[in-house]
Amino acid sequence: MARRMVIIGGGAAGIGAAGAAKAAAPSAEVIVYTAFEDVGYSPCGIPYVHGKEIPDFTSLFLAEKQAYADAGIDVRYETTVLGFDPESRTVQVEGEGPSGYDALIIATGFDYKPPGVPGEDLGGLYYVKNIRRAMEWDKILDNVRHAVVVEASPLGLEMVTALAHRGIDTHVIDPHPWALGELCDPDIVAPVQESWAEMGVTTHWDTRLLGFTGDREGHVRTVATTDGELPAELVVVATHKVANNALAVAAGLRTGSTGGLVVDDHMRTSAPHVWAAGDVCEIPHGVGGLPLQGLTGSHAYAQGKVAGTNAAGGERAYQPVYVPWGMVAGTWMIGGAALGEVAATALGVPHVVGKATGISRARYFPGVRPVTVKLLAEPRTLRLIGAQMVGGEGIKERADFLALAVRKGITLHDLASMENVYSPPIGALNEPIVTAAQAGVST
Amino acid sequence: MARRMVIIGGGAAGIGAAGAAKAAAPSAEVIVYTAFEDVGYSPCGIPYVHGKEIPDFTSLFLAEKQAYADAGIDVRYETTVLGFDPESRTVQVEGEGPSGYDALIIATGFDYKPPGVPGEDLGGLYYVKNIRRAMEWDKILDNVRHAVVVEASPLGLEMVTALAHRGIDTHVIDPHPWALGELCDPDIVAPVQESWAEMGVTTHWDTRLLGFTGDREGHVRTVATTDGELPAELVVVATHKVANNALAVAAGLRTGSTGGLVVDDHMRTSAPHVWAAGDVCEIPHGVGGLPLQGLTGSHAYAQGKVAGTNAAGGERAYQPVYVPWGMVAGTWMIGGAALGEVAATALGVPHVVGKATGISRARYFPGVRPVTVKLLAEPRTLRLIGAQMVGGEGIKERADFLALAVRKGITLHDLASMENVYSPPIGALNEPIVTAAQAGVST
Repeated sequence: MARRMVIIGGGAAGIGAAGAAKAAAPSAEVIVYTAFEDVGYSPCGIPYVHGKEIPDFTSLFLAEKQAYADAGIDVRYETTVLGFDPESRTVQVEGEGPSGYDALIIATGFDYKPPGVPGEDLGGLYYVKNIRRAMEWDKILDNVRHAVVVEASPLGLEMVTALAHRGIDTHVIDPHPWALGELCDPDIVAPVQESWAEMGVTTHWDTRLLGFTGDREGHVRTVATTDGELPAELVVVATHKVANNALAVAAGLRTGSTGGLVVDDHMRTSAPHVWAAGDVCEIPHGVGGLPLQGLTGSHAYAQGKVAGTNAAGGERAYQPVYVPWGMVAGTWMIGGAALGEVAATALGVPHVVGKATGISRARYFPGVRPVTVKLLAEPRTLRLIGAQMVGGEGIKERADFLALAVRKGITLHDLASMENVYSPPIGALNEPIVTAAQAGVST
Repeated sequence: MARRMVIIGGGAAGIGAAGAAKAAAPSAEVIVYTAFEDVGYSPCGIPYVHGKEIPDFTSLFLAEKQAYADAGIDVRYETTVLGFDPESRTVQVEGEGPSGYDALIIATGFDYKPPGVPGEDLGGLYYVKNIRRAMEWDKILDNVRHAVVVEASPLGLEMVTALAHRGIDTHVIDPHPWALGELCDPDIVAPVQESWAEMGVTTHWDTRLLGFTGDREGHVRTVATTDGELPAELVVVATHKVANNALAVAAGLRTGSTGGLVVDDHMRTSAPHVWAAGDVCEIPHGVGGLPLQGLTGSHAYAQGKVAGTNAAGGERAYQPVYVPWGMVAGTWMIGGAALGEVAATALGVPHVVGKATGISRARYFPGVRPVTVKLLAEPRTLRLIGAQMVGGEGIKERADFLALAVRKGITLHDLASMENVYSPPIGALNEPIVTAAQAGVST
C-alpha cells in the first residue's frame, strides 16, 4: 500500500521535501498543501524585478504546475490547513474533513515580525513574500515618490537598492547603529552605507518606528520615527523573520528559544511521524551550538530534502550550519560565514582578527574593485571561527569556502600559506583571504 | 657589518625576494641584477594590452624605479651576470670584476622552449616576455592580418583571444588533440574551443610545427605544419616554459627531471648560501610529489618571499603545491586544482569522478552562465585529489578553494553537504561544487 505523505507549505522547504520524498519512495502519495496560488517560484527574485534588473515576474517560476503533477506530486493550491493531530495522524483542511497521513512535514515558513505600532492596518504597507501580490505592488511602484523601508535586514537592503534603482526617494530606518546590525560588522557594511548615500538613499540609524498615519482613504502618508516624521506612500516592512509556527504550536510540538520548531539532525520534530524543514525550524549553529532560525532558501531546500528523504523511509542527516551569506548591497557585494566580530564579542567567544584589503583582479585590469576580508579565529589554535567580507566580486564563492573552512577546522596558518590563481582579468597576485590570514597570524 | 645579498633576476621571484630580504634584515645590502630595462611590472598583463582590454602598457608598472631605491633595494638595470661561484661566494658581472656575496638568490626565470625547426631566426617570431619589446610588437600588430600561435599553452590561449579581439585572422597549432593538452581535460576545454570558432579563430589539433619560411627581407610569411601551410606575418611562439638554468648549471647546482633547480622546503639549492625561487626551480606536487616547473607569477612571488626571508636569516617554509589555476579563454573562464582526469589517468592514480553543470547566478538573473565542475577523488576515502572547471563566473575563487581542499584532505562527503550562499545576482540555489560532489558520492 502506498505511503501517504502530507507536506504543509509550498515554498523551498516544502517543494524540496516533496521531490526528495518521491525520489526515496516513488510509490508514495505525496500531497503538498499551500494557501497560495503557486508553488515552485523564487520569492528571492522579487526585489530584483521591482528594481528592474530582472525583466518580468514570470521568469521567477521554476516549472509549470503540470510539471509537479507529472512528477507525481499532488499540490493542493489555495488550500488552508487548519490544524493537525499527531495522535490520530490527521490533518484538518478547510472545507474538507480530516484526512490521514503516514508522515507529515511542516514547512510553513516565516512571517515578518509585526511592527506593533499604531497604523499597522493602513494600506501601503508592503510585506514582500507572495509573487501575485508582488505583481500588484509592482504596478503601484510606478506612482510612488517617497518610500520608507523599515529595518535594514537582508530583504530591507535588497529593497532599498531596488527602490533607489526605480528612482524613488527612499529612506531606511533601523533600531541598530548600522545596517544588518545583527549579522554584519560596522566596518564591513560601511562602504555599503556610503554607496547608498551616493545613490540618494537617506539612512536613519538608532531609529525606532513609532507608527504610521494615513489619509482619509486609509492609505499611509507618513511614518513616525524617533528621528522625526518621514513622508511615504509606500512602506516596506522588512522586519525580522519569525517562524510561522502557529499550527505546530497548536498541535503541541516543541519550539526553541527562537520560536522555531526544535528538530533533530534528521529534521524530526518532537512529535512522532512529524518532520519539519525551512524557516519554521531552528537549527544549531556550528560554532557554539546556538539555535538559528530564518536562514536562506538554499538552507530551506536542503533541509526539505533531508526531511522528505527521512519521512519517506530513507536516511539522510543534516549538519549544524555555518551560514555562508552574501548579497549585493548598494554598489557592493557583502558576505561572510559563521561568526562576525560583533557576534563573537556579544557571545563572549574569544577571538583574534586578521583583516586586509586586496583587489579582485590585477590592479590595472578594467573593473578591478577592492575586496576586504576579515577573518576571526580561536586565539591559540588559530582555528577559523568566522569571516566577513565586502568587495566588488567573488564574495559568494569566498563565503561558501570560508563556511566549509570553519566546519573543517582550517586555521589561519593554512589560509596564510594558501596558493591562489593569478590571472589579470580574474584574480590578483595576492588573494585577500591569504593577506588577511597573514595579518592574523602575525598579531 | 651589513649582510650583502645578491639576487639574479628582476621578475616576480626576484622582486619578492628583495622585498622579503629587506623586511627580514633591514640593514642588509640587497642588490638585484637584471638584464632588462625595468623591474616591477606585470608581464602577465601584456596579452590584455595587445587585446586592447587594458588601455596602455604603463599601467602594468607597479612602482617607479625610485620606489625600489627608496626601499633600499639596489636594482642594477641592463646588467648581465656572467656567472657565479659558490666556493668563493662571488658573482661575475659583465664589465665589472667579481664581487662577493653572503647570500645569493637565483631568480632567472624561464625561456620558451625553442621551436627547433628551420626558419627560427626569421623576423616576425614573437616571444611574449619583455614589456619594452611588447610595446614595439603592439605597433606591429596594427598591420598584421594573419597570425599563427604555436601551442595552445596558457599564454597561447591568452594570445589567441587577444589577436582575435584585435581583428587578426588567427590560427593556433598544437601537437595535442585539444587545447591545454598537458593541463586540462578535453570535456572542460571543449566550450572554449567552440567559442574560438565563433570568434573566427581556426584551430589545428594534433598538428606539429615543421618550419617557417620568409620573404627576402628575412621576415616570416608562412608556417609549415603537418596540417598544411598557413600564411602569417606574425608567429607567437607560446611553447612550453623551460627553466632558464644556464648560470646555475654552470655553477654546478643540481637540477631535477624538469630541468628546474632542485630546492628544499626553504628554497635552498644544492649549493651552500644559494637559494632559488620562481620558474628556474622545480617544486613537488602536493599529490604524489612529482616535480613541477613553470608555475604562475603568484607562485614565483611567494617563493621569492620564502627565499628572501631565509637568505636574510629569517625562517619561512614553502609547501608542496596544489596549483590552483584559472584564466579567461575564449568567452569562458576555465580553471582547476591539483590533478585533472587526464593527468590522473596518465599517472596511474586511481580516482572516482563527480561532475555536474550548474549555474553562476539565479537561473532568471541577467548574466547567468553555466558552471561545470568536475571533482576527482581517491576511490574509497573519497578524499579530493583534483578539480577542473569551466564556466562564466567565479572560477578563480573556486579553484583557490579546491586547491586548499585537496591539501587539507577534504572529501566529496564534506563537499556534498556544504552550505552555499543563495542570492539571485551572485549565487544560485545549488552550488555546482556541491552538485558535482553529490554525483561523485553516489557513483
